[in-house]
Amino acid sequence: MWPEPSPRATFAERRAALDRLLPGPKVLLSGLPRPRNFRNNPYPFRAESHFLYLIGESLVGAALLVDGDRTALYVEEPPPGDALWHGPRPSSRELGEELGLPVHRLSDLAAGEGVATLPPQDEESAVLLSELLDRDVTPASGDEVEGRDAALADAMIALRLRHDAAAVTQLRYAARVAELAHAAGRAAVRPGRREAEIRAEMEREIVAAGCGLPYTPIVTIRGEVLHAVGHSGKLRPGDLLLADVGAETPEGFASDVTRTWPVAGRFTSVQRDVYEVVLAASDAALAAVRPGARFLEVHREAGRALLRGLIDLGLFRGDVEDLLQRGAAALFFPHGVGHLLGLDVHDLEDLGDRAGYAPGRPRLGGPGDRHLRLDRDLEPGMCVTIEPGFYRIPAVLEDPEALGDLEGALDRRCLRSLESVRGIRIEDDVLVTNDGSEVLTRAIPRAVADVERAG
Amino acid sequence: MWPEPSPRATFAERRAALDRLLPGPKVLLSGLPRPRNFRNNPYPFRAESHFLYLIGESLVGAALLVDGDRTALYVEEPPPGDALWHGPRPSSRELGEELGLPVHRLSDLAAGEGVATLPPQDEESAVLLSELLDRDVTPASGDEVEGRDAALADAMIALRLRHDAAAVTQLRYAARVAELAHAAGRAAVRPGRREAEIRAEMEREIVAAGCGLPYTPIVTIRGEVLHAVGHSGKLRPGDLLLADVGAETPEGFASDVTRTWPVAGRFTSVQRDVYEVVLAASDAALAAVRPGARFLEVHREAGRALLRGLIDLGLFRGDVEDLLQRGAAALFFPHGVGHLLGLDVHDLEDLGDRAGYAPGRPRLGGPGDRHLRLDRDLEPGMCVTIEPGFYRIPAVLEDPEALGDLEGALDRRCLRSLESVRGIRIEDDVLVTNDGSEVLTRAIPRAVADVERAG
Repeated sequence: MWPEPSPRATFAERRAALDRLLPGPKVLLSGLPRPRNFRNNPYPFRAESHFLYLIGESLVGAALLVDGDRTALYVEEPPPGDALWHGPRPSSRELGEELGLPVHRLSDLAAGEGVATLPPQDEESAVLLSELLDRDVTPASGDEVEGRDAALADAMIALRLRHDAAAVTQLRYAARVAELAHAAGRAAVRPGRREAEIRAEMEREIVAAGCGLPYTPIVTIRGEVLHAVGHSGKLRPGDLLLADVGAETPEGFASDVTRTWPVAGRFTSVQRDVYEVVLAASDAALAAVRPGARFLEVHREAGRALLRGLIDLGLFRGDVEDLLQRGAAALFFPHGVGHLLGLDVHDLEDLGDRAGYAPGRPRLGGPGDRHLRLDRDLEPGMCVTIEPGFYRIPAVLEDPEALGDLEGALDRRCLRSLESVRGIRIEDDVLVTNDGSEVLTRAIPRAVADVERAG
Repeated sequence: MWPEPSPRATFAERRAALDRLLPGPKVLLSGLPRPRNFRNNPYPFRAESHFLYLIGESLVGAALLVDGDRTALYVEEPPPGDALWHGPRPSSRELGEELGLPVHRLSDLAAGEGVATLPPQDEESAVLLSELLDRDVTPASGDEVEGRDAALADAMIALRLRHDAAAVTQLRYAARVAELAHAAGRAAVRPGRREAEIRAEMEREIVAAGCGLPYTPIVTIRGEVLHAVGHSGKLRPGDLLLADVGAETPEGFASDVTRTWPVAGRFTSVQRDVYEVVLAASDAALAAVRPGARFLEVHREAGRALLRGLIDLGLFRGDVEDLLQRGAAALFFPHGVGHLLGLDVHDLEDLGDRAGYAPGRPRLGGPGDRHLRLDRDLEPGMCVTIEPGFYRIPAVLEDPEALGDLEGALDRRCLRSLESVRGIRIEDDVLVTNDGSEVLTRAIPRAVADVERAG
């Protein structure tokens, strides 16, 4: 199994589409390597997503000019002696033939006045871009850009929100590799092993399939810590292991998948009950994903289903709709039900809420809503994650301010009975289709019987 | 198998030793996370090595003040809502008890005048450090620092050149994990597999053992490309696979190991001949590693042994010493025989040749010497790599300038007969002891019979 590059025509078509949306000169930088512990030892280079979208290769320090007939790629000349360390590089002509556009030296880039660009992610790239464009460019959020830069941001959002056929092929491959990783992870879970050992099995599948990691994997028995780092924890029989692990293709497209497995092989009955509630919330949200649906409403559907289940379990007293409005779902599910997925695991997040939120639709401030990264009306070709969860988070449940008047609706005795559940999340990747949706990660088992180990 | 943290007293002793070497205030920053494709998605954070040496934990955005009784750690307050994403953090008091020094808020750091510091690795950290110290600090090489900063660089070099007992324990663990990785890699090599699949097996061992990657692994059938990236190559029966893969402990200490395996399981006789030559060069260099030996001389010993072997093979005509002086070894072995190893895979390389070269001993310009990263007299406690190689590099062998008058000494027919050898490297990690040296990676097989697969 090996990733296929997208047809070369794809990138020419994307560049042409950008040019139609925003005529005039636009420069997109690939970015510079980030140093790890010293400058000659950088992290593996990964070009900025807008550049990857339009070129398809992580070329270091390259600038793409998109401007009708002047459209060309500008690359740094390799330093003297480069061939010794990095082997022969294609000539400009060869690279141009491979990529299907003219290639020139970076020093020959004369972008001229009125060039639109997007804010880079780090200061070094900002310095390079400022030099190239002869104006001050600083790392910034997409919500801060102005003028023609804002128009370019909007054009890239318009292009990248709905995935073309080549992007969908990439997303499918990333989902397929996540399937291998999660199968390996599930098979490896066993009391006495470390979180790191499970992570290692999962990453092996991803690396072997020619992919990388779109984000630092979360593989933890402390599922209630949403962004847990470190993998030293030892798996005990009563634990649940939460694994949030995705793959990234060489062209940069990601999958983002979470499963939660019982370490002992079987859930306790309490764990199973809560797992089923999260699964029901996922099913409700998945059912709501279709063209025209507002994503806030998908999020609400997950909250409603979660509350219905928790009321059935006796954790809450009251009416679903009333509890939802009072923020009860957020006590145990404090993050959004999902986000855009594409070239970034939170796609287009470099451009801020300009990407995730429809114009004129600001982020809401409520406890369950303020972390929602997406509130657009869904359209065919969009890809989103659906990832409801249930977490017993002390910082929330022991904070009178977070609880507010919900204390009265909460059954503390029932809560104590759920002690063996720290965190459960079920996350899938979903493509919006013309008449509904398609779960790209559907082959990754999630039913109780499939998540448990036989024997 | 899991990494043990160093005894807490280690770090207090290291801080006290630094204070003795250079009294007065010194501030060392841990650094800031580097963004990957967007700012909220950073690479896994790894603190700068000087900070790790003195604290032992990769705390984000922390500053260590070392100044007698004022010695303390300054850390950023977690932002509001942090506990939701990252779980409860230790209080300043708890962190101070764990680390064995007072912990204050970063905003309370009042370093005062005349504070020494070291150049950070990226612009973001430079901005933070400039603010904290109220003076301009820029990313720079250690060869450029001045005044008290230069004195601090020299003090850190003096401390870190010779490893203390805790550091040696860390290096041993990193070497042991590399042993597991290389055993897995060797076992996985098979025609038809991809480079990425072998890399995946090796990384699995590293991650499972609680370690990370100190540098991007090189796993390639294009051994002649010294820093080959990408792992899409398919292993063919006649190929050699070069695997340069090490491990890094959570405290930041590295191993750096290369082996070269025949894909078919057995070397061809030509491949075996050249492999034996590289092995002899390694043995000669290893034998030269002892207290008092000048590292340039170790490098020369490798060159001599390589040339002796290549003369025996008929590749060169002439006298070993004469050929060595004319740069003949560098035609096939263009890099240095090794470098410092410790917290960085090229230890202390952030400080430039100030670290690797003894005072008053500049880098030599010759083809075999200009890439040598180390030329000090060895002392007990130093750790170095020994990594001779043989590479058929077209950029060298087809460059009349690189060849100079060596063309006459080179047998081109013999060279053509070596076509099945692209690159071979054998790299080990060696600790200088009181009476000689100890190869930390000696358990990783390197003899022909051990590198070949039975059956």
